[in-house]
Amino acid sequence: MSCKLITSDVVLCLDADDHIYKNGYMVVEDDRITEIGYQKDLDSRRKFDETVELGPRLVMPGLVNAHTHSPMTLFRGHVEGHTLFTLDGWFNTIRVLEMKIDSEMIGPGVAVSCAEMIRTGTTTFVDQYFWMDHIYPEVRKSGLRAVLAYGIVELGEETARKRELAAAAAFLESLQDDPLLTGWLGPHAFFVDNSETAMGLEKELADKYKVGFHTHFATGQEENDYCREHYGITAIQQLNKMGFLEYPIIAAHSIGIPLEDLDTVKDKPFTAVFAPSSGMRNAAGIAPLNALRAAGVNVALGTDNVTNNNSYDMFKEMAITGKIMALLERNADAIPTRYILDMATMGGARAIGMEKEIGSLETGKKADLIALDLNEIGWAPFGGQDFYAALVYAVSGYHVRDVMVNGNWLFRDNDWTSMDYLKVRGELEAKHDELMRRIKE
Amino acid sequence: MSCKLITSDVVLCLDADDHIYKNGYMVVEDDRITEIGYQKDLDSRRKFDETVELGPRLVMPGLVNAHTHSPMTLFRGHVEGHTLFTLDGWFNTIRVLEMKIDSEMIGPGVAVSCAEMIRTGTTTFVDQYFWMDHIYPEVRKSGLRAVLAYGIVELGEETARKRELAAAAAFLESLQDDPLLTGWLGPHAFFVDNSETAMGLEKELADKYKVGFHTHFATGQEENDYCREHYGITAIQQLNKMGFLEYPIIAAHSIGIPLEDLDTVKDKPFTAVFAPSSGMRNAAGIAPLNALRAAGVNVALGTDNVTNNNSYDMFKEMAITGKIMALLERNADAIPTRYILDMATMGGARAIGMEKEIGSLETGKKADLIALDLNEIGWAPFGGQDFYAALVYAVSGYHVRDVMVNGNWLFRDNDWTSMDYLKVRGELEAKHDELMRRIKE
Repeated sequence: MSCKLITSDVVLCLDADDHIYKNGYMVVEDDRITEIGYQKDLDSRRKFDETVELGPRLVMPGLVNAHTHSPMTLFRGHVEGHTLFTLDGWFNTIRVLEMKIDSEMIGPGVAVSCAEMIRTGTTTFVDQYFWMDHIYPEVRKSGLRAVLAYGIVELGEETARKRELAAAAAFLESLQDDPLLTGWLGPHAFFVDNSETAMGLEKELADKYKVGFHTHFATGQEENDYCREHYGITAIQQLNKMGFLEYPIIAAHSIGIPLEDLDTVKDKPFTAVFAPSSGMRNAAGIAPLNALRAAGVNVALGTDNVTNNNSYDMFKEMAITGKIMALLERNADAIPTRYILDMATMGGARAIGMEKEIGSLETGKKADLIALDLNEIGWAPFGGQDFYAALVYAVSGYHVRDVMVNGNWLFRDNDWTSMDYLKVRGELEAKHDELMRRIKE
Repeated sequence: MSCKLITSDVVLCLDADDHIYKNGYMVVEDDRITEIGYQKDLDSRRKFDETVELGPRLVMPGLVNAHTHSPMTLFRGHVEGHTLFTLDGWFNTIRVLEMKIDSEMIGPGVAVSCAEMIRTGTTTFVDQYFWMDHIYPEVRKSGLRAVLAYGIVELGEETARKRELAAAAAFLESLQDDPLLTGWLGPHAFFVDNSETAMGLEKELADKYKVGFHTHFATGQEENDYCREHYGITAIQQLNKMGFLEYPIIAAHSIGIPLEDLDTVKDKPFTAVFAPSSGMRNAAGIAPLNALRAAGVNVALGTDNVTNNNSYDMFKEMAITGKIMALLERNADAIPTRYILDMATMGGARAIGMEKEIGSLETGKKADLIALDLNEIGWAPFGGQDFYAALVYAVSGYHVRDVMVNGNWLFRDNDWTSMDYLKVRGELEAKHDELMRRIKE
């Protein structure tokens, strides 16, 4: 058993009681936090395998990025000025690239994504993409915690369906008992590109492996239009009728989620992912955050992929969440900063059913934490702004200096420990060059 | 004469021809750029007083923050959840603090603001506040370039008017021939809190010292309501009638600027400052950017103060500019990234009449430049995204590693050279504590 002592000027727990320990400490035994408190209460004679004195840093829970597509760093910059939120936009920009990639290009894209997430304070991400069997080995190398959903588009075609479901099953099998990675199912979008037949088979698979669904939902009105036409009810009502709402569902974007359906999902393991940068840049809009909040629906925060957003910095997403809501609701107090932090931590933890394991710093929870440099700009005056306001509006993911996942450091003193960032980036550049050659052929 | 050679992997000029030199160099003689080109074209036998090989960094023009109130770091965090854009909001939050500050508190607030601006890549800022005689010595110490406008609120009171105009004149006198600092006049808001009598006298002062006006304009409809009631025309029309539009005017916020007036201001030395974070957080709105752009009105970018915004990072402002415009106009291509970069550089330079001196990297211009770390995250793949998209959406002010103003380094290899940041921050904390004691008394 390894037993680490971590001390720092501030330990911000983001737990239900909002504990903040100035001159605080934590004890991490193997992968778990076993103590949190004030340094003055710590017996100075106690021995630890490792003592890390972080000094002027703020320790807080690692962030949970609830909606990503990690290989898509390959395509960053290729959709500037376009939208990915229409079939045309997606097909004319990303799909033409996706049709030219092969399995060797996936790893470097994923590795760079993991590096960027680690560097900006994300400790858990919730991914959905194709090529999942080439994604998870890279994520495993990074040391991040992740829920990886096998992306399925079958468009009602039997051949595609059979192939995809078999591959999804094999993928779920391969992640059984992984300490950090969990396999899920990722129907790209229910009803839109996953037929009712496919959905039925996906549900059987979810039963067998006890997993949830990570899907795009209500980025427009396609699902609702389809369901209203075919079943006379909304997509949520139809999902409920089909039994899907008993499974964890991560509904990415949820821009056009019908407000009358919020009561239906509020007590279900259902999460709407608020992805403001993506929805703004794509000109599609953002989820009705305050209606979701008022209804008691779980809301998590996500960056989406870096072609839609360009950055994995969840601190940027937090800041823009407060700003866009204030503007749209014409109320400077539209969203409390503490709630925004909850979206980026516990909201994501609840989304993946890990609210008892991660999302806050508490004794007994997994040791997933980050430390921000208090000697950087933005914090002053300490006596004026609270830490919550500073974290949401004044600082950024580039203040992160240390990242620990499951008791292991992935970033220490501003450098990656689990990877050589410039090396994986060089690999990405080479693969991107090759992709460009193929496109031009 | 000092002659410096600076080399770096990328020199991005942001000039009219969009020059980008990969493996580029610049020669800086004293305060000016005398050469820009490719390293391969440089005679290796030439001698320089100083050679700085920046390597994997992107050199670009320093940013111009066109609307700030530098002492207000003192109040950061004090208006969370409130708006400063109504008389009530401003009076109940900031004004109660402002009435308790004294001259000794100004310096540390300004110093921390300068530190944060330098650190995130701003080389010129355009300030407006009271206590200007205590502001400029601190700005001078920082080495930044600034246009400092003496803030005037006189509410039609003769005593206040006389006192303020005399002090403004003394201030303008004190900055005559300063190499980096320019004094301007800062009527807090025409018509709203500066009477027509005061405005007339301010114009005389502007004539005498050949300076412009930095004012809040159209944060709401107050000026227009007043002018329509008293003169039967809009505020812009009345300003025109009074001869004000012949002077440089920086109209901060310009949220409610009447679109029918854009033709009137487009050929005048008039600048609308787009301050998206501030207008969003204050729930007041943002300027009609595309109408201003279409009309050919000069637009600059500004953070406003750090109680409205919390951060001086102009890269954040650039990103949010693109995102909010795409959302509001329901068009992913609402604002070209290159135009956003123009707002943050040449737009600000034009605002202060320095477009021939700063705002782009060109031979003959002042050596105001910044260098961003290309080994940091966000840039990959180089072959996919262009530098403009990366700068606006993927990176941040925390990528800045070097800042030069007027040929002098203010930040080198991630550290300030003109100030001890932690020291000035400690002074700010002490002054803030004292302010809090006064408030509680």
